[in-house]
Amino acid sequence: MDSIQKLVDTFRRFPGIGPRQARRFAYFLLTRDDSYNATLSKLIAEVKKDVRKCSDCQRFTSINNSKSTLCDICSDSSRDRTVLTIVGADTDLESIEKSGFYKGYYFVLGGNLPILEPEPEKKIRVKELRSLIEKKAKAGLTEIILALNANTEGEHTADYVAGVIRGLHGSNVKITRLGRGLSTGTELEYVDGDTLKNALRHRE
Amino acid sequence: MDSIQKLVDTFRRFPGIGPRQARRFAYFLLTRDDSYNATLSKLIAEVKKDVRKCSDCQRFTSINNSKSTLCDICSDSSRDRTVLTIVGADTDLESIEKSGFYKGYYFVLGGNLPILEPEPEKKIRVKELRSLIEKKAKAGLTEIILALNANTEGEHTADYVAGVIRGLHGSNVKITRLGRGLSTGTELEYVDGDTLKNALRHRE
Amino acid sequence: MDSIQKLVDTFRRFPGIGPRQARRFAYFLLTRDDSYNATLSKLIAEVKKDVRKCSDCQRFTSINNSKSTLCDICSDSSRDRTVLTIVGADTDLESIEKSGFYKGYYFVLGGNLPILEPEPEKKIRVKELRSLIEKKAKAGLTEIILALNANTEGEHTADYVAGVIRGLHGSNVKITRLGRGLSTGTELEYVDGDTLKNALRHRE
Amino acid sequence: MDSIQKLVDTFRRFPGIGPRQARRFAYFLLTRDDSYNATLSKLIAEVKKDVRKCSDCQRFTSINNSKSTLCDICSDSSRDRTVLTIVGADTDLESIEKSGFYKGYYFVLGGNLPILEPEPEKKIRVKELRSLIEKKAKAGLTEIILALNANTEGEHTADYVAGVIRGLHGSNVKITRLGRGLSTGTELEYVDGDTLKNALRHRE
Repeated sequence: MDSIQKLVDTFRRFPGIGPRQARRFAYFLLTRDDSYNATLSKLIAEVKKDVRKCSDCQRFTSINNSKSTLCDICSDSSRDRTVLTIVGADTDLESIEKSGFYKGYYFVLGGNLPILEPEPEKKIRVKELRSLIEKKAKAGLTEIILALNANTEGEHTADYVAGVIRGLHGSNVKITRLGRGLSTGTELEYVDGDTLKNALRHRE
Repeated sequence: MDSIQKLVDTFRRFPGIGPRQARRFAYFLLTRDDSYNATLSKLIAEVKKDVRKCSDCQRFTSINNSKSTLCDICSDSSRDRTVLTIVGADTDLESIEKSGFYKGYYFVLGGNLPILEPEPEKKIRVKELRSLIEKKAKAGLTEIILALNANTEGEHTADYVAGVIRGLHGSNVKITRLGRGLSTGTELEYVDGDTLKNALRHRE
Repeated sequence: MDSIQKLVDTFRRFPGIGPRQARRFAYFLLTRDDSYNATLSKLIAEVKKDVRKCSDCQRFTSINNSKSTLCDICSDSSRDRTVLTIVGADTDLESIEKSGFYKGYYFVLGGNLPILEPEPEKKIRVKELRSLIEKKAKAGLTEIILALNANTEGEHTADYVAGVIRGLHGSNVKITRLGRGLSTGTELEYVDGDTLKNALRHRE
Repeated sequence: MDSIQKLVDTFRRFPGIGPRQARRFAYFLLTRDDSYNATLSKLIAEVKKDVRKCSDCQRFTSINNSKSTLCDICSDSSRDRTVLTIVGADTDLESIEKSGFYKGYYFVLGGNLPILEPEPEKKIRVKELRSLIEKKAKAGLTEIILALNANTEGEHTADYVAGVIRGLHGSNVKITRLGRGLSTGTELEYVDGDTLKNALRHRE
């Protein structure tokens, strides 16, 4: 098989990329100047060396010559240590951080649990979560926010994680979940009954 | 102009209907049997005679041989008289009623207020709202829920209506709004920052 | 059942209209002035009386006080009598007429034939087609254009109609079909192989 | 700036890729095993070395240890040497080749001409086109097919290229364009007037 086709086949495994777009990527690279391709090639070869998981929140973080095993959020001692937010993926953490409202710490599960997952501990970081909660509990943690998707899989994951937390020896932190209601832009005429109930329950 | 074209032009004024669909409606009627067209014609001719506005909530309601000027909800004395929900349109009332969670009474504004509306009282039913609140206040009303769209126009309408209510002599009912947060099905990766803030604020 | 609901249920049978839009139509009529509803009601009641099928092409046409049983196209003797175009629906005839290129006569089948239709003569106007072709053949007809949809059903209909025409006693008119190729706006990157073959075959 | 962000920024320049998808690509690579990333990195670094432009049709082609400067199509002497098809992009050539109908040779312009392009020879391969036509003309070429997009830019490009070809000394090859008409799946009700005219003109 030729180089173009190999490149197409490799791009096809990218998330959300079909055969036509994979092909466009390959031709795109063929028409770049050499420095663009060299840069991209180097970044891909090295990204896992330059990046490690934060030893607290487990998100991917660049090493940046620092000796700390913590990311910039986990090493920021000015944040609110009474609250820890558990998210599914690195991008969820980034969304919350960008909204600018939350000032506590995070933990990234690394996935969501499908309903019938037989081995949850292989899908999400249960062991690391237990350690972090024990560490944070000693440092004043009083609330854990389960910030998971508002769909069946997200709810199943939240139920499972809540069970893990309650099972921790002597755990008496409060466990909360993100509030349900009308998301910005919603018109009542098009809203589902479940969301409407939550919006009424959470009226303020 | 011929009859088909006149019918097409009349259907074009229906909400959301373009020229192509208006034409399909006309040809659809040309191929119906006479009884379908006769029934539809009669229903259209008589719908406003058979229907009036409920003298309390102002929604459209069939008369049904009853002498009451109230709709079936407003005449149901078993509902919760401490709470009144204000909506923009009849269909919003139906959405809330169908969700099955709410047991109080309603009021239909008959529209939303555009931001720069110079004559709000011509756009929404302010006078009828004042009368109803005064009547309900004597009957034990303690809370008014503004159930308006979660967009700029809906918020503007809610602000205006809240002002009207506070201006009522001796009004001390609590005014609330529908809760904001994640609507059912939302994934964190795609949510806007505003909704995320509300979901964190309303965590439970 | 009340009048609003009856109206909603009747609108739901309109082509392409779901429950939500049917409801919006009903509320739309409730807020019209009486004259709009009266006009629409009258148009619907009378449309089938004011309209008949043209005795030649079978399309719906307004009567307009004329004694002729022909529509304005079929009664226009200045058109090209050597060519007859067969379409599925009245709207197809209108599309071709609006494109301004064609100057011959038409025939409307009144539908398309599903692949396994057991009784084709009940689905499309076979008898009327035979009569018209015999009449036009005497008047100089030399070509019949089958202007049917470029999909499976349209092709099946074209095959069936071509068989009917060839079966006519002494018929020696030429039968043609609409040309296949790139439709306006097509980009080669997104085109299907079948269309590409036709575009190559019809290169000019 | 950290490695993840650099990778995100580089992926953002890929065709059709926004910030969110660029980020998903970066996290995708962080979770691959080392061999996937190493393979992709190597393919990107080397793709331009393993690939050159065919000296006849100018499309990208893998070198494959062969000493020939021609791609597999241009070096296939069993193809029809009377016809040459000019396309805008490599992917257009692939689409035509996959449709299986065409057996002649190709030339890839490397782009399309915007309407007001001041320097056409910098946008498309005019010089290489002239050489190839002169070479093919001596070998029996009788027809050039301009297989360009059926939109304004494609038509402008076709006009320009036709002018170039006619300007060649002693050129008397026939110049054709892809046929216009109904593309597969088209329903007459939704077709534009221009396509309808072409479909009538190309009836067969």
